[in-house]
Amino acid sequence: MSTRERILDAAEQALREFGIVGATTKRIARQAGCSEALLYKHFPSKETLLLAVLLERQPTLGDALARLRLAVGEGDVAANLSLFAVAAVEFYTKAATIASGVLADPSLMAGFRIMLAKAGSGPHVPILALAEIIEAEQDGGRIDAGMDAQAAASMLMGACFHRANLSYYVDLPEDTRSWAAGVVGTLLRR
Amino acid sequence: MSTRERILDAAEQALREFGIVGATTKRIARQAGCSEALLYKHFPSKETLLLAVLLERQPTLGDALARLRLAVGEGDVAANLSLFAVAAVEFYTKAATIASGVLADPSLMAGFRIMLAKAGSGPHVPILALAEIIEAEQDGGRIDAGMDAQAAASMLMGACFHRANLSYYVDLPEDTRSWAAGVVGTLLRR
Repeated sequence: MSTRERILDAAEQALREFGIVGATTKRIARQAGCSEALLYKHFPSKETLLLAVLLERQPTLGDALARLRLAVGEGDVAANLSLFAVAAVEFYTKAATIASGVLADPSLMAGFRIMLAKAGSGPHVPILALAEIIEAEQDGGRIDAGMDAQAAASMLMGACFHRANLSYYVDLPEDTRSWAAGVVGTLLRR
Repeated sequence: MSTRERILDAAEQALREFGIVGATTKRIARQAGCSEALLYKHFPSKETLLLAVLLERQPTLGDALARLRLAVGEGDVAANLSLFAVAAVEFYTKAATIASGVLADPSLMAGFRIMLAKAGSGPHVPILALAEIIEAEQDGGRIDAGMDAQAAASMLMGACFHRANLSYYVDLPEDTRSWAAGVVGTLLRR
């Protein structure tokens, strides 16, 4: 593994374990088995390093969306969406520790916002992708064509994102699978 | 204003401006016009201070929920829920900077989680309150009685929470008012 990769691994682990406050470059360098000077050779600032972790190590919803897209017209549409919702809750739960670190640091967020705007990317993109899949199911007659796909995608994705965040504050009573089935059933009811 | 209040004001402002990383007790004390020693007399640790900001200064959704509850059976139910959704997005947008600071700091979150459990409180409580209001409207025949009020509340609140967070990362194309109308319309369709 290259030094760069080792540093990224160490930074990712430090962020999960100690949060953005405790994830110092000193701690990250020690964990990566290199000097702080070498760390700064690869990443000129702590910001650059954290942004690299976000862009290269943040899990993505891509796989779960790809599975859902492949399942358009196949199997039970509510079951497919429920499985996706469970995956989305898991994704957002993993992403929360790093995402909150960015949001908690205004200067880091400013840099990240500019990078996202340049890349035309951002955390809203999965909502658009989910809306497209819902529209494909509407075209196939498996979801009520009168439903606003964009609004439906906002609600399903938002509910998953919120639940992931809530799980850090409180023990949630219902298991995620039955919660997801309830939400999807309510969304799709005719 | 008491010293304690001045320190809380200064801490709140420092959190918004510099994030949890930059909101040092040194900076907060200077802003409050007191010594760090005096700050520590009122708040034995930075954690205690941040938790006090969270519990005493965090805006709440209480007013918006109270208005929605008063409007049960009155006016247009979709319009009432849309107004509430706009208020919820505003609330979550303000809350995000502090909430992310807690989530980004595992030790702070651990303490906060224990406090919430003891108080039987937490960020899931507004969802329960919204579900009760939806049920009251269902009892009055203004919302489809077949809808799962809990799931509907999860989706509406989740969509607002998610939108508030997204607004930190990207410029959202649609204005919040028309977005809220679309989401509520989709949720309530029969």
